[in-house]
Amino acid sequence: MTVADVVTTDRYPTRLRSASSWIERRDPVVWPGVRKGPAGPGELAAHTTKGFHTQRLLGPEEARRYREELYLLAADSELRGDGRLVLEPDSREVRSIFAVHRLSEAVAALIRRPRILDHARQLLGSDVYVHQSRVNFMPGFTGSGFYWHSDFESWHAEDGMPAPRAVSLSISLTDNHPFNGGLMLVPGAHATFVPCVGETPEDNYRSSLERQRIGVPAEEDITRLVERHGIEQFTGPAGTALWFDSNSMHASGNNITPYPRSNLFVVFNSVDNALTEPYAAPGHRPEFVAARDFAPLSRT
Amino acid sequence: MTVADVVTTDRYPTRLRSASSWIERRDPVVWPGVRKGPAGPGELAAHTTKGFHTQRLLGPEEARRYREELYLLAADSELRGDGRLVLEPDSREVRSIFAVHRLSEAVAALIRRPRILDHARQLLGSDVYVHQSRVNFMPGFTGSGFYWHSDFESWHAEDGMPAPRAVSLSISLTDNHPFNGGLMLVPGAHATFVPCVGETPEDNYRSSLERQRIGVPAEEDITRLVERHGIEQFTGPAGTALWFDSNSMHASGNNITPYPRSNLFVVFNSVDNALTEPYAAPGHRPEFVAARDFAPLSRT
Repeated sequence: MTVADVVTTDRYPTRLRSASSWIERRDPVVWPGVRKGPAGPGELAAHTTKGFHTQRLLGPEEARRYREELYLLAADSELRGDGRLVLEPDSREVRSIFAVHRLSEAVAALIRRPRILDHARQLLGSDVYVHQSRVNFMPGFTGSGFYWHSDFESWHAEDGMPAPRAVSLSISLTDNHPFNGGLMLVPGAHATFVPCVGETPEDNYRSSLERQRIGVPAEEDITRLVERHGIEQFTGPAGTALWFDSNSMHASGNNITPYPRSNLFVVFNSVDNALTEPYAAPGHRPEFVAARDFAPLSRT
Repeated sequence: MTVADVVTTDRYPTRLRSASSWIERRDPVVWPGVRKGPAGPGELAAHTTKGFHTQRLLGPEEARRYREELYLLAADSELRGDGRLVLEPDSREVRSIFAVHRLSEAVAALIRRPRILDHARQLLGSDVYVHQSRVNFMPGFTGSGFYWHSDFESWHAEDGMPAPRAVSLSISLTDNHPFNGGLMLVPGAHATFVPCVGETPEDNYRSSLERQRIGVPAEEDITRLVERHGIEQFTGPAGTALWFDSNSMHASGNNITPYPRSNLFVVFNSVDNALTEPYAAPGHRPEFVAARDFAPLSRT
């Protein structure tokens, strides 16, 4: 393999003109390189097999403090009209705030705690940086959910992330019941890359953050994956955390219960997996969606 | 109380011009009158306290046979254009077939089995007839769910059902997971009648069977009920049955999983609770939505 091959070969082609076969993942899930860390053998085994694992990360009081901090941020009038603030398509309530680890000192400190940062380093086998962070607010009664997708599919196509060497941490700030729009995951589907059909339009990110239309797998692909692997839901009290591989297939249903659902979402990427040019999109997405500052995150 | 009072007094006023207080139910949930029957003391106690109870009614093979029978009925070209067939608003797939106990001999025989018919008689304390029956098909990926409502609120307002002396039997024909749009119920909410705001337009039933807009409680009412009582989901393998009081507050979320969800739904009403004129609607709904043949259902 020459240097030119390394740069130009796309091992995960997607956004195709017609349906294509699934690609078996060759990349590791738990990467070698960092032996010691807070993740236990059971967590690492689950992560390898299912593509995710959960833990009790924050106590109820801590979860409440972060929830209040981020509700205040959502109400901050200085952020109105800011691209980092995404609204619900119908109710126009705040759905997400991006780059929250830059907007909130509390969150900046939280993700640098050894229990989190070293956990991410252990999974990815290297130093890490934050590819994206956000807080998601799913309101009660009108929460509209997210259709099935692999995050890596988007990050590869639209951000130029070469390999699935990234991991997402979702910390629930409210109780996750089985019925208020919590995440559904297909355990084991992270071992398969499902190419999507449809070319990426310019500025796709603006509409896709509200409601995804491009980068969506075919119904037959979802059906086959679920027949093979089933579905698991991420439930638990506020403070429960989910670590999930960037190529996990996941979705969330709507929320017509009175229980809102909020979570803090941070994507760690390996510094050895820094973004290149997008593999299947006309331009870069903004820095707050896909950071291009690849400096390793440090504890202080 | 004179005869005129009995006829004209509306103990459950609804479809009002402005918000009104909740009405505490005075009517029993398990009615006296029929002492012996297949329902055990635990089932009767749960029904009284929560307003519902579940049981394993059909084996997997039996559930499969009814599922196939009703899928064939949905595909029956003779029913196209028939008012008893309701389609999904977006995909135009079959969502429900009404009067299914008249369209299918298998269903007609099933609901006359002593295990079902005598169970209904025991709960309602009298002979019973079928107020409504239908099969619901919630497709995978695009199932759109039902918002919160009490059936009795509709049956009282639009069909003239005097009291909540009716019980619904929902038999799942497919597996009910926590994540494929299964019924959510507010345990204990059947003891409270929540009046709804908004007058009933003519022919409301046509659109309400697709998507309910009238007869919907306010968000604050749902929030207060759920704060008081919580939410339970009806889950279980195909063949599991749910008996629920006509005034149970219930809803179902959407279904974006590949698992379709089908159920057979039969409403038994007491022959001593026969329909009068609608309490809050301009005219009668059709016979297949609200039967006016009050002859008791018999075993043969």
